Amino acid sequence: MKTKLLAAGVALAFGAGAGYVLNAYAQVKPETLVKQRQAAMTLQGKYWYRILRPMGQGKIPYDSGAVARTVPLMDALSQMPWDGFSPATKDVKSATLPAAYEQAAKFKEAQDQYRAEMVKLVAVVAKGGDEAAVKAQILAVNKGCDGCHEDFRQRN
Amino acid sequence: MKTKLLAAGVALAFGAGAGYVLNAYAQVKPETLVKQRQAAMTLQGKYWYRILRPMGQGKIPYDSGAVARTVPLMDALSQMPWDGFSPATKDVKSATLPAAYEQAAKFKEAQDQYRAEMVKLVAVVAKGGDEAAVKAQILAVNKGCDGCHEDFRQRN
Repeated sequence: MKTKLLAAGVALAFGAGAGYVLNAYAQVKPETLVKQRQAAMTLQGKYWYRILRPMGQGKIPYDSGAVARTVPLMDALSQMPWDGFSPATKDVKSATLPAAYEQAAKFKEAQDQYRAEMVKLVAVVAKGGDEAAVKAQILAVNKGCDGCHEDFRQRN
Repeated sequence: MKTKLLAAGVALAFGAGAGYVLNAYAQVKPETLVKQRQAAMTLQGKYWYRILRPMGQGKIPYDSGAVARTVPLMDALSQMPWDGFSPATKDVKSATLPAAYEQAAKFKEAQDQYRAEMVKLVAVVAKGGDEAAVKAQILAVNKGCDGCHEDFRQRN
């Protein structure tokens, strides 16, 4: 099949002027973009839903070492999915709802809200935040996950 | 199916004494571990094979901004696959060769070699390494990728 230019997604990820990166991405198939964004979600699930969220919710014991190791991984992963939601992917089967493409600005806002809370979590941990502060910020990040999932992802 | 305890993989990822994390991981199915490690490989492909490696090889123009944004993502991703190669996964279909389980020490050594080169790349970039230094270290990391793939992954 003919691959498509994905300028929108690339601009989202790398900012304006990164034409060479556009070239690097230009031949990525929509199916590959979906696979990559799903991979980023799978890995966020690994670290968030099994370690950080249950720690924030008090379902497993709090451990500052595990927080220090895991939050930077989530910081990186939380930057990765968004350029995969290029308009070129809208017909590829996935759990993404049409709203993600039809209300792109609202979707972007929800992504940004999640990222902003994650950046705050990184800062809380970096300045040696105590258990209560870290847990509170984990729950704030989690609202960011839910905020996006509610409107833009099929319910399980 | 009955899920299995995956103590080995967890110990690899989080060091000794992280019993609560073991609890968090204890119910992860082998199939899920494989999906997660494959997700980490998929995302390394996104950033390595389409951005950093071709930049290191001079196939696309060098851009220090893109390097600064992408290397930290690779630093995180390069830590993620390894606890997914638990012995419990050896019968799950994947591109992993039996050698990964049968020669676990050698496999671990290849992983560590790759990670060590990635840590060096992070350091080169952090201290404002020039184009030649960064490119040279990208190629060193890439040898680390190949070193593992040659012995432990099916050829495409």
